[in-house]
Amino acid sequence: MHLSPPVAVSGGGEIRVKNSPQGTDQSVNDKYVVLYDFSGIGAKAFLRINISSASPTDTCLEYEVATKEFNSLLDNLEAAGLHTEVRPGYDQTILVFVHASKQLLGNTVYKFRVRDWLYSITQTHPGGDKDTVAPGWYEAEDILAVHHLVLWPKELGGAGITPEVGQWKNVKSIFPLHNEHVNQSLLRHLSRRFILTVEDFDHVRDLFGSKVAFYFAFIQTYLVFLTFPAFTGVITWLFLPKYSLAYAILTSVWCTVFLEYWKLRQVDLSIRWNVRGVNKTKANRPEFKYERVIVDETGRTTHYFPKSKQIARQLLQIPFIIVAAAALGAIICCVFAVEVLISEAYEVPHPLYLEYLPTIVLAVAIPYISSSLEGVATLLNNYENHRTADEHEMSLTQKIFILNIITNYLPIVLTAFVYVPFGDAVVPSLKRVLQRLIPGLESGFSAREFRPDWDRLRNEVIALTVTGQISNFFEENILPLLKHQFQDWYREYRRTHTKDAMLLSMVTDEPEEAKFLQTCRNQATLLQYNVQEDMAELVLQFGYLALFSPVWPLISLGFLINNWIELRSDFAKICFEYKRPAPTRADGIGPWIQSLDMLTWIGSISTAAIVHLFHTDPADSGRWATLPITIFVSEHILLGLRAFTRYVFERFGSAQIRKERNERYARRFAHLEQIEANKRAGVNLSPAERERRKSVLVASSDSFWTKQIDEGMSSAAGMRLIGLTREWEEKNGCGLEKKRA
Amino acid sequence: MHLSPPVAVSGGGEIRVKNSPQGTDQSVNDKYVVLYDFSGIGAKAFLRINISSASPTDTCLEYEVATKEFNSLLDNLEAAGLHTEVRPGYDQTILVFVHASKQLLGNTVYKFRVRDWLYSITQTHPGGDKDTVAPGWYEAEDILAVHHLVLWPKELGGAGITPEVGQWKNVKSIFPLHNEHVNQSLLRHLSRRFILTVEDFDHVRDLFGSKVAFYFAFIQTYLVFLTFPAFTGVITWLFLPKYSLAYAILTSVWCTVFLEYWKLRQVDLSIRWNVRGVNKTKANRPEFKYERVIVDETGRTTHYFPKSKQIARQLLQIPFIIVAAAALGAIICCVFAVEVLISEAYEVPHPLYLEYLPTIVLAVAIPYISSSLEGVATLLNNYENHRTADEHEMSLTQKIFILNIITNYLPIVLTAFVYVPFGDAVVPSLKRVLQRLIPGLESGFSAREFRPDWDRLRNEVIALTVTGQISNFFEENILPLLKHQFQDWYREYRRTHTKDAMLLSMVTDEPEEAKFLQTCRNQATLLQYNVQEDMAELVLQFGYLALFSPVWPLISLGFLINNWIELRSDFAKICFEYKRPAPTRADGIGPWIQSLDMLTWIGSISTAAIVHLFHTDPADSGRWATLPITIFVSEHILLGLRAFTRYVFERFGSAQIRKERNERYARRFAHLEQIEANKRAGVNLSPAERERRKSVLVASSDSFWTKQIDEGMSSAAGMRLIGLTREWEEKNGCGLEKKRA
Repeated sequence: MHLSPPVAVSGGGEIRVKNSPQGTDQSVNDKYVVLYDFSGIGAKAFLRINISSASPTDTCLEYEVATKEFNSLLDNLEAAGLHTEVRPGYDQTILVFVHASKQLLGNTVYKFRVRDWLYSITQTHPGGDKDTVAPGWYEAEDILAVHHLVLWPKELGGAGITPEVGQWKNVKSIFPLHNEHVNQSLLRHLSRRFILTVEDFDHVRDLFGSKVAFYFAFIQTYLVFLTFPAFTGVITWLFLPKYSLAYAILTSVWCTVFLEYWKLRQVDLSIRWNVRGVNKTKANRPEFKYERVIVDETGRTTHYFPKSKQIARQLLQIPFIIVAAAALGAIICCVFAVEVLISEAYEVPHPLYLEYLPTIVLAVAIPYISSSLEGVATLLNNYENHRTADEHEMSLTQKIFILNIITNYLPIVLTAFVYVPFGDAVVPSLKRVLQRLIPGLESGFSAREFRPDWDRLRNEVIALTVTGQISNFFEENILPLLKHQFQDWYREYRRTHTKDAMLLSMVTDEPEEAKFLQTCRNQATLLQYNVQEDMAELVLQFGYLALFSPVWPLISLGFLINNWIELRSDFAKICFEYKRPAPTRADGIGPWIQSLDMLTWIGSISTAAIVHLFHTDPADSGRWATLPITIFVSEHILLGLRAFTRYVFERFGSAQIRKERNERYARRFAHLEQIEANKRAGVNLSPAERERRKSVLVASSDSFWTKQIDEGMSSAAGMRLIGLTREWEEKNGCGLEKKRA
Repeated sequence: MHLSPPVAVSGGGEIRVKNSPQGTDQSVNDKYVVLYDFSGIGAKAFLRINISSASPTDTCLEYEVATKEFNSLLDNLEAAGLHTEVRPGYDQTILVFVHASKQLLGNTVYKFRVRDWLYSITQTHPGGDKDTVAPGWYEAEDILAVHHLVLWPKELGGAGITPEVGQWKNVKSIFPLHNEHVNQSLLRHLSRRFILTVEDFDHVRDLFGSKVAFYFAFIQTYLVFLTFPAFTGVITWLFLPKYSLAYAILTSVWCTVFLEYWKLRQVDLSIRWNVRGVNKTKANRPEFKYERVIVDETGRTTHYFPKSKQIARQLLQIPFIIVAAAALGAIICCVFAVEVLISEAYEVPHPLYLEYLPTIVLAVAIPYISSSLEGVATLLNNYENHRTADEHEMSLTQKIFILNIITNYLPIVLTAFVYVPFGDAVVPSLKRVLQRLIPGLESGFSAREFRPDWDRLRNEVIALTVTGQISNFFEENILPLLKHQFQDWYREYRRTHTKDAMLLSMVTDEPEEAKFLQTCRNQATLLQYNVQEDMAELVLQFGYLALFSPVWPLISLGFLINNWIELRSDFAKICFEYKRPAPTRADGIGPWIQSLDMLTWIGSISTAAIVHLFHTDPADSGRWATLPITIFVSEHILLGLRAFTRYVFERFGSAQIRKERNERYARRFAHLEQIEANKRAGVNLSPAERERRKSVLVASSDSFWTKQIDEGMSSAAGMRLIGLTREWEEKNGCGLEKKRA
């Protein structure tokens, strides 16, 4: 049952696919696990007994419902042609192991290849017929086929098991098993290599699908590009004045070039991985609510939900974001005010950490503030009723991203454009208000005139980026590990101390399966991976660079180091802290491109404003009048530069794009050549055939076209006309000669 | 030989395709005319005799070369399978009538349909095989096939006759014949209808191909949209103050909505006409120079010209445009200065026409100034070495368009942003300079202080747009007619008075052919139509609206009336004043979209600035300080609005796009259903087959997957687990109950 060919190994040969990852001789490419949880039932039954004083037969009823539901789950899986094995899970869960036979899997893989061809994602029909069994070219292709067999609705040939939705609300998750051996060898490989190549991303694609692979390709491209601002940043820091104009310009140009390069690279990779335009093939998400089903003249069934309604609902984002921005803004302003007042409250020089403590607290608290707003965003997003899972996920992440932008960038914007330039007006009045509110506070404040601290902007950026990166690392890598450890310990504790029914206290695994089952149970407790969260983090980081780079040129060096580690730790994270993600396909990083474009654009305004305000003499009152002009010029130069870069990159294209074009051409040429050869044969007719055709032409009504039908007649007619002219000229001399004379 | 089906007639039934348009019973769909001119030869021979004192045998040699060339022309045409008839033309030209047999034409049409399918322009294979003879669905399809048979290189199955290039420099043109009957009935139809429908554009497409049809569809869409600013413009003119902010905002919004609507409409039409993505199929233009021929591994032959070289050459545009802009700017500034000084030279009130005479002179002269710069642009464009004829033509037209923009808009920009606001500083110093240069000029100028004339901006716009439209109309419609009349008269004059060899003085047409041949000779003298020139004119007009609409709100009404006539007169122009254009295909108006986008963008800056400066009190010196802020706000509101409009239009899509999607879906579904049905059959196995499969599974090495292989075993295992829990709960009471107790 070793369907998937070994992962291609390039340079080093360290990555070996061994299809027996977990003790028993298990391949993972043809399996899926469905986690069924019936723990709610006992509790529900108990509640019903207590509340409505119902008889114990109700408990009985609940269990019968659970039994029916579970049987229906198995029936659905089997109706899709899948084989199931049932084993107990932790607590009151059941693990249903799903297995696709070699034939079913191969045929499904084949079907998806035909589907890709029909949707013009790949250019050639895979060959074969409806009985073809095609082994997957790589593990993720097989797993995706099984994923669709389990998840997709019956009309599309799946079992329609949609976790936590409707009928299947007790199915907590469906997931493929980690190929631990490959995970580990790839992780070792990645941590040993300094610069990753495209083959490394091929490996990631083979393991986790192209959506995840695109994230790694993006972070690597970004990493390589980061060396430039890191280098120039160090130079600037060492030799150039603060808020250097030259560095700001360089960084803006860099942002633009990087983005345009990535856009091309993304197309290139999507062709390499046969996923270009793959979004067209996505099925409806099960939660999608439609108003009615329309069957059109072609027999197509569409689930209709009015576009206007969807647009109206999506427009709700705008008030949401405004309210969220106002709320977050208010919190940030408060922290800010407290911080400024603390720094004012001491006359004597005080330690740096005290002054920036609120900022650091804010930086650490930001992830938690954001996540409380995420709840609202999620509700709103559900209400928006997106058709595909991709759109849904992307829309949610973008909302959260906007919240992140506000919490992360607003303090810096406030410092740069309110505190420093207007601090001498704002802060004293703030003090006065406070003193009126809390009498007896005068003594605390220094009597001297307030002077805004110009270095504050720099320190703010340092504090936010550095603590931000560290707290992110902790939140992503350390926290889940601790959480998982604690869960394990708590499960063990409950097992020995609780009176609840624990399946594993009642049933013992068969010895040869014990190790494998333990791994599976462990994976079932892990979290679901969402690659968009990692992308959001990177885009946010890019934003710091695009918007505030001249404030602290060393920022890029920090990001460079952070990302080198991030790439590897993210891979480890997916392997150890998350369930194996369904190897979903994508043809790029999607709408993040627009986010990055937008950040670069805003960056051209923001950096220009910062350099203009902080580089000039603060005493010069004219600098505010000229600020809009600086912004206008900077913004339009950037837009022009972007158009230019795009034009050049598009002109040059890329190797993959050219290769694809050549292949298409060859296919087309072969096709057309048939017809062409036929025509050539027709033109070089036999004399007999020529005569026959001539007679057809003569027989046709029009005499005009039969005058010069015989061979050489047209030519003779032309010769006669040229000859006539020549004779005339020779008789009369050239016209020119005459005129001259 | 009536291949083309009659043009579909909608509403009215006025348009009848009669395939005998010109006296004799000629269909035009399978014919082409090649115009061969050997008039240079006599002159060349004469010159050679005079210069190098060569013997008359050299004349003989020249004629032999001409004879050979002409024979080779006929050979090439015949090698492509075409039949030729030779007739004398005017002066020293020969008309070669080219005719494609029913079989050749039908097979070529079929070949191009297969080609379109291969290039994913159409979605379904046309069926048939290499011998299929497909009659064209409409006249232009047949004609395009003949066009390609004559023009395309031998490798692509054509005769390779490239007029005025290389070997064929004596071939002056190749052209299809006008279908005069359909031309006239369609013209009648168009002039009778107030609003044109999509079926009318279908007719234009049937006659002249989609490239020309897109122009008419664009002008009609623009026309319909113009009713809105025309209406609001009249309201504004009647009731609102000058330089109305409300009207400026409305017009900016209108520009954006119109453009986004058209983008969608364009896609819609390109699907309707089966030309979506048709640019992919274009062949190299014969003038394209390549450095070397590359044959790649797929056997594809590419003509290689380095991308970097091409980009470098295209960058030469930038200095060219800067120099041209400087030169034009200097001329315009001079005219401007003269004009201002004239208005200053009279103390007494003087008639309006005198003051604006220079502007009117400039407006009339503009087409001629531009056309002198066109020569340079053409040279530069040839040097740029574009691969396809489309790119070449488009690049040239865009260059000329930029020149037009400068000549047309610069006077207005000067008036708005230099003369009116700074006139009181500039004009007196201009006077002083002049007085110093030309002593005794003092008396001419008025002694009073100079006051810029605020109405001047308005009058300038009126003068430029009105005279511009009128002079365009004259240049386009009247001038060519006069020119043509004069040519006819001159030809007749020469025929009776010259001693030059005139073929028609020596040969007489056969009576039954005389009328037909006269029509053809006449068409051979007409100009080549270039649809891009008409597009450029419209885009320029749109620019007036986008950039300067608040200056004179009635401008849109004028454009509305002008365009209603323009649409019809342009159609008449193509029919009577130009050779029938080769029915080239295009999937929209191409890069003009970008030009329109750019104009809308600049318009958001320009209108904001005009309203800001002219609407506020001129005495308010602060208005210059706030101007950049107004511009910044206006520009970004427009960009936001554009993104929003685009999003909404893209969400809604269009009927054609949905229809195409449904058709694709049906095709895909039918295909996949085969495989799906097969799978379903496999799942509902017979008991015997089920047993067989089971034994296969059991035989496989892994015991884990065979435990619950028998029917109902998985289910039973699940039941046992749920049952165990239930027993436990019933024995111990619910966990919750316990905890509570």
